[in-house]
Amino acid sequence: MKYHDSETAREVANRVQAFMDDVVLPREREALATGEQITDDEISELWEMAKERNLFAPQMPEEYGGQGLAFRDMLPSFEQVGRSLIGAISIRANAPDEGNMHTLELVGSEEQKKEWLRPLVQGEFSSGFSMTEPMQGGGSDPKMLGTTAKKDGDEWVINGHKWWTTGGKESDFLLVMARTDLDAHPYAGTSIILVPTDTDGVNIVRNISHLGGHDITEREFGHAEIKYENVRVPVENTVGEEGQGFQIAQMRLGGGRLTHCMRYSGMAERSLDIAKAYLSEREGFGEPLANKQALRHRIADAETKLHMARTGVRHAARELDQSEARIEVAMAKVFTANVTNEIIDLAVQCCGANGIGKDLPLAQFYENVRAFRIVDGADEVHRRSIARDAFEDIREEEINHVLRFDPDRRAESSTDE
Amino acid sequence: MKYHDSETAREVANRVQAFMDDVVLPREREALATGEQITDDEISELWEMAKERNLFAPQMPEEYGGQGLAFRDMLPSFEQVGRSLIGAISIRANAPDEGNMHTLELVGSEEQKKEWLRPLVQGEFSSGFSMTEPMQGGGSDPKMLGTTAKKDGDEWVINGHKWWTTGGKESDFLLVMARTDLDAHPYAGTSIILVPTDTDGVNIVRNISHLGGHDITEREFGHAEIKYENVRVPVENTVGEEGQGFQIAQMRLGGGRLTHCMRYSGMAERSLDIAKAYLSEREGFGEPLANKQALRHRIADAETKLHMARTGVRHAARELDQSEARIEVAMAKVFTANVTNEIIDLAVQCCGANGIGKDLPLAQFYENVRAFRIVDGADEVHRRSIARDAFEDIREEEINHVLRFDPDRRAESSTDE
Amino acid sequence: MKYHDSETAREVANRVQAFMDDVVLPREREALATGEQITDDEISELWEMAKERNLFAPQMPEEYGGQGLAFRDMLPSFEQVGRSLIGAISIRANAPDEGNMHTLELVGSEEQKKEWLRPLVQGEFSSGFSMTEPMQGGGSDPKMLGTTAKKDGDEWVINGHKWWTTGGKESDFLLVMARTDLDAHPYAGTSIILVPTDTDGVNIVRNISHLGGHDITEREFGHAEIKYENVRVPVENTVGEEGQGFQIAQMRLGGGRLTHCMRYSGMAERSLDIAKAYLSEREGFGEPLANKQALRHRIADAETKLHMARTGVRHAARELDQSEARIEVAMAKVFTANVTNEIIDLAVQCCGANGIGKDLPLAQFYENVRAFRIVDGADEVHRRSIARDAFEDIREEEINHVLRFDPDRRAESSTDE
Amino acid sequence: MKYHDSETAREVANRVQAFMDDVVLPREREALATGEQITDDEISELWEMAKERNLFAPQMPEEYGGQGLAFRDMLPSFEQVGRSLIGAISIRANAPDEGNMHTLELVGSEEQKKEWLRPLVQGEFSSGFSMTEPMQGGGSDPKMLGTTAKKDGDEWVINGHKWWTTGGKESDFLLVMARTDLDAHPYAGTSIILVPTDTDGVNIVRNISHLGGHDITEREFGHAEIKYENVRVPVENTVGEEGQGFQIAQMRLGGGRLTHCMRYSGMAERSLDIAKAYLSEREGFGEPLANKQALRHRIADAETKLHMARTGVRHAARELDQSEARIEVAMAKVFTANVTNEIIDLAVQCCGANGIGKDLPLAQFYENVRAFRIVDGADEVHRRSIARDAFEDIREEEINHVLRFDPDRRAESSTDE
Repeated sequence: MKYHDSETAREVANRVQAFMDDVVLPREREALATGEQITDDEISELWEMAKERNLFAPQMPEEYGGQGLAFRDMLPSFEQVGRSLIGAISIRANAPDEGNMHTLELVGSEEQKKEWLRPLVQGEFSSGFSMTEPMQGGGSDPKMLGTTAKKDGDEWVINGHKWWTTGGKESDFLLVMARTDLDAHPYAGTSIILVPTDTDGVNIVRNISHLGGHDITEREFGHAEIKYENVRVPVENTVGEEGQGFQIAQMRLGGGRLTHCMRYSGMAERSLDIAKAYLSEREGFGEPLANKQALRHRIADAETKLHMARTGVRHAARELDQSEARIEVAMAKVFTANVTNEIIDLAVQCCGANGIGKDLPLAQFYENVRAFRIVDGADEVHRRSIARDAFEDIREEEINHVLRFDPDRRAESSTDE
Repeated sequence: MKYHDSETAREVANRVQAFMDDVVLPREREALATGEQITDDEISELWEMAKERNLFAPQMPEEYGGQGLAFRDMLPSFEQVGRSLIGAISIRANAPDEGNMHTLELVGSEEQKKEWLRPLVQGEFSSGFSMTEPMQGGGSDPKMLGTTAKKDGDEWVINGHKWWTTGGKESDFLLVMARTDLDAHPYAGTSIILVPTDTDGVNIVRNISHLGGHDITEREFGHAEIKYENVRVPVENTVGEEGQGFQIAQMRLGGGRLTHCMRYSGMAERSLDIAKAYLSEREGFGEPLANKQALRHRIADAETKLHMARTGVRHAARELDQSEARIEVAMAKVFTANVTNEIIDLAVQCCGANGIGKDLPLAQFYENVRAFRIVDGADEVHRRSIARDAFEDIREEEINHVLRFDPDRRAESSTDE
Repeated sequence: MKYHDSETAREVANRVQAFMDDVVLPREREALATGEQITDDEISELWEMAKERNLFAPQMPEEYGGQGLAFRDMLPSFEQVGRSLIGAISIRANAPDEGNMHTLELVGSEEQKKEWLRPLVQGEFSSGFSMTEPMQGGGSDPKMLGTTAKKDGDEWVINGHKWWTTGGKESDFLLVMARTDLDAHPYAGTSIILVPTDTDGVNIVRNISHLGGHDITEREFGHAEIKYENVRVPVENTVGEEGQGFQIAQMRLGGGRLTHCMRYSGMAERSLDIAKAYLSEREGFGEPLANKQALRHRIADAETKLHMARTGVRHAARELDQSEARIEVAMAKVFTANVTNEIIDLAVQCCGANGIGKDLPLAQFYENVRAFRIVDGADEVHRRSIARDAFEDIREEEINHVLRFDPDRRAESSTDE
Repeated sequence: MKYHDSETAREVANRVQAFMDDVVLPREREALATGEQITDDEISELWEMAKERNLFAPQMPEEYGGQGLAFRDMLPSFEQVGRSLIGAISIRANAPDEGNMHTLELVGSEEQKKEWLRPLVQGEFSSGFSMTEPMQGGGSDPKMLGTTAKKDGDEWVINGHKWWTTGGKESDFLLVMARTDLDAHPYAGTSIILVPTDTDGVNIVRNISHLGGHDITEREFGHAEIKYENVRVPVENTVGEEGQGFQIAQMRLGGGRLTHCMRYSGMAERSLDIAKAYLSEREGFGEPLANKQALRHRIADAETKLHMARTGVRHAARELDQSEARIEVAMAKVFTANVTNEIIDLAVQCCGANGIGKDLPLAQFYENVRAFRIVDGADEVHRRSIARDAFEDIREEEINHVLRFDPDRRAESSTDE
């Protein structure tokens, strides 16, 4: 399928695809085949190769060591990195660092950029984003945010309990969402504060054991449970404007949802590639499995839905250039999340026991993609927004028709005609 | 939802929408409420109004009385006409006449245009397209076409048995697909021949009773079973080049599939409008049904999928400008057909008994939309094409990985690395 | 599939099956092929044949001309009658007469049985059940019942507006649900009153045009909209105890839901029989369609789900012998309604244009089965009951575990262990 | 839901349920909350408690230390053990040991029973079942079995390559499927041979990394890849009759499929219990999540389908008493596998991040249940059998009707009528 991306976007995506095909996917397949994890040093080697190809940290300004690509020009490349378990990290576009870079670059102070952003881009630092809380039910209801930061002189004193802070255990610093004005609505009284991980009172309880979890990289990208107990950092560590935490997080999320959609679309595409290769190669009852129509037709439906998801994500991205595009993004996200789950499930089924085993990347894709219907707004949260929007737009004429057709009221209104 | 249609396309669609909202939908609702069918005279009145608004026969050249709009500029308007049971006919864009006009305009001789196309555009004539045959299984396998036309002097002698010839019984002329060279492959030996319906030997057996069938227009748009028994017409009645029947039919179908997608999308949109109006107005257990989340969320999913269908159809239309876009069109068609079936089914469910009754247009939409998964290529035919295309594109590296991971062969190939 | 029905049940079902195969189905197929409707006289002939085979009015006591079969022994036979469009009527087990017979037999007075039940069983009378009202949203919320009957001397004076009164237009008498005590809760203040259709003030507005509607019988089984305007009948026409209308209707519905499930299961079975015959007989691309796996596997899933539905209905019937079995019946109903809709849709798809045309019974099955997800309690109403029951049964231990796992509360409760 | 199980079955299931509720589930929850794995010693303690309650090794004869329960009387108890991650092992009914006990008890020699079965029952030994091979595509096509055993004097010499041998790495002995007569059809030339794991030439390559994989027990129940290289065992190690390997495996599988269905049904039930507890306890937007209809209705559907699965499994078990019940078992298996996957997926979604995390058992259930659509016959294999059976049973009358309705042939056959 061809898409109507900008010329720059296509050119970059082609180069990212080549990097994946030539370098990253062979490395991933080798790791899967041998069962040996990819070391930090090997990741650094991939970064060097990405730099040579002008693909390293693609969305960061060149002054920090990135490629200075605009969101719209980078978007299709996320499909390409999504094809590999180590695609995003190989070009330093991996969560949560990529989002944190984006946030610091957008609203960070010069000081913060110098001290934290530059080494973060370079991969000298890693980072976490500490937002979700145990009692919050996925973070969808902002009123339930319980972590607070109180000013004490020129310091914030932070107390709270977070979890699912991705990369928190391995991080050098954390961006922490905290209520900074309890009298205000959370949308006006919440701030993001940068906390070096080695600050006193940052108590990393554990990495939460979760679905899946054998990474093929040595470095674990766990999700930390963290207690903040009287953690003190300078007031200057506020990231962006005080009280604007939710707005900054939304900004971060808006485009982020679409890049995630692209990454998972790439993952689904790769899964179909593997399934098709497997079905073509394997035989059963005297002919290649690929000849059998039942799975062929399900693959046709998978290709169709994946195509629709890609088209929908691009539509939302185009709208996002001009507006908040809240509903377009919600639709793209909930559709893509469900479609990619379904497709990866199908690919596992096509490969039978080989779909369950980890000599192929499918089982890990299957573990990873499940979270996508929950994070970045659970399906139910997006459906809620979409429905609210849809029900705002009820046509008066149809209401009249529904009423008019009610025999009693019809009698009354019939004089009008 | 906004779409990235051309300025002309949006301008025309806005005018079509206004015509529907101001004139056509009120007329339709009245017919439903009273149960009285819309007469031919009333259709003619609608045509006059469409002419005043420069919307009559929109894709026909102005010299024949149309508006001279390009396919791409007209496409989004089909969503608007699809919203009403009488939308397409109200602007003289109804099947099969619209497709027959298109065919005659494209490949008809000057004589044919003068004699048949002009009055067809004006609505003085109506027409049928006689392609499907009883033994053919939906027309998907061209080798099974059994109708023949043999030259006898300067006449064709046509023999065959057709059915599902839409509008055949009421038509003034028929375009008939017939094998004209039995030695050639059907793709090279089939022609389209124009047959005046009152020619000797045209035996209209019946209109086939089918799903649904109470039209709100007096004029019945039935599907005729027709026997052609030694029907003689001049050789000049060949439409387009002799032997090119399938190519011409394909040309007709290509864009036609997309306009159908648009029409059914409009039907689905209208169905959701009605369902939302109904749920907002009706109460159950002490609150409006619209407050209840189960149907709200299903409507959110319906809106999402409908949006994806619309986006996918527009993508295919854009590709069609540049290539055959066979797979893009197949994907758009099979996806839209299933999504619109699902949505209209949901709307029926939302309205309960009122969804089943014909005081609202939903029941008729439900009857109509079912055929869309069968005509213009059944789902299975499109899935077959999509799968064939998908399996052409198997990545060598994944095959190697699948093989390599096979322990025995892995041992052998491991020396390569 | 074999089921563990009682010996009597199996014996009766075998005889009903033979009657269908030998007499009823050939008659139905002939009517479909010729397009000629079956006359009332022909129905009477079928009744004579059913009497000869001791199958006429199977659940009515022998003294009224029936066979005296118990519900449980008759249940599996409803699968057999469901296989034909004229199956139920051919043995005088058709709605709504069958349910009305059941009601009169159960709670009617001796006078009512003599005057109304006997001729109803014999087919001399036909009847309607007048319950649903336009503003009621399917009748699920009893508080919205608006029809009233007030005592004036020894007469009821009935006023109200009903619709979807099946068979109302052709009926000799109607059973009407009316509020008879406005001060009581509707469950205690509603009665069923027998109203001869020719009583003054019974105003049959129309038969409601609805989904489908070309019957293959001459006699139309329409759904009437009826206004009751100061209709006077003797107080003796109360059917069962005054104020017990809802209880009687429930009793009628309980088993009725299961017999409907059986009938629609039979309809689904027949649909699969036709689809399989069609696929086996028709060819496409050089081999029988039946060889193609995609539809084969979907048929396998259809057979599986139909089997589960049948098993679930029988489970509910067995429970119903001992208790109200509200949830079991709700589950059987909602599952069967959805499964049979899905299967008949699949059968239509398998047969392509022949699935849409009415030379086969599929299109009419498709029209009929849609209502099944709405009547006898819409899907949403049953899901509501099932969910309420499910959420009553939450395990304390799991609640504790969910809470305990909340880190803050876990700390507190850890002292207990 | 109540089921119509035998009195013994219900009595045993009640006691198993009590053991789970009182002992096993609290132990499991503790392990999840602390993250500490359950040791072998703790498993032995559970066994002692199971013995005290007369629940240990329930299907083994008392002389070997079991409870001597018949399959039908034990079946419903598998639902109860399925509710816990350690349910099956806690009563020594865990795969693959339970199946191996069953096989040895059924066809093993007295010597084998004494030497291998007794300690296996007691838990002194553990075992593996070595059937699947890398090139075999899930084992569905018997002709692709490559492992051979050749007689050399009074010894078998075994060569072959197996994988997915559950428990193989930790086992004391293996039951190995091997071709023993290459000239015969595999159904007549395959035998099961008992191989002590410490025999020379048994090369356990690895445990295959696979979906999920963090067990809550110290003992890993991995799936081993094993090479058999000139492995010599006495001919007396043949289990059952020589050449009857497939028949014995089928016997083992027949009932095994149903017990698996029951275990996964229990897992699904527990998942719903947790989801309901979570939704009732957690709040969002000002009310318990349980009040929101969208998830409530999906839970209603889940309860409904789970009920149908349970009913279908019991139907198959009842048939299995009297016949091979191949289709009934296939239907029960494919339906239950899909339904339990769907339900556990829903439960994960209900719990959001807590569904992904492993403080609750849901994520592990999610990992485990995926394999169920692949092992014991993949969905596609069962659909294939069901379809073959369904297409054997095409009604002649429907074929005639399909043909008759074909206009040409109808003409010919119309003389018959």
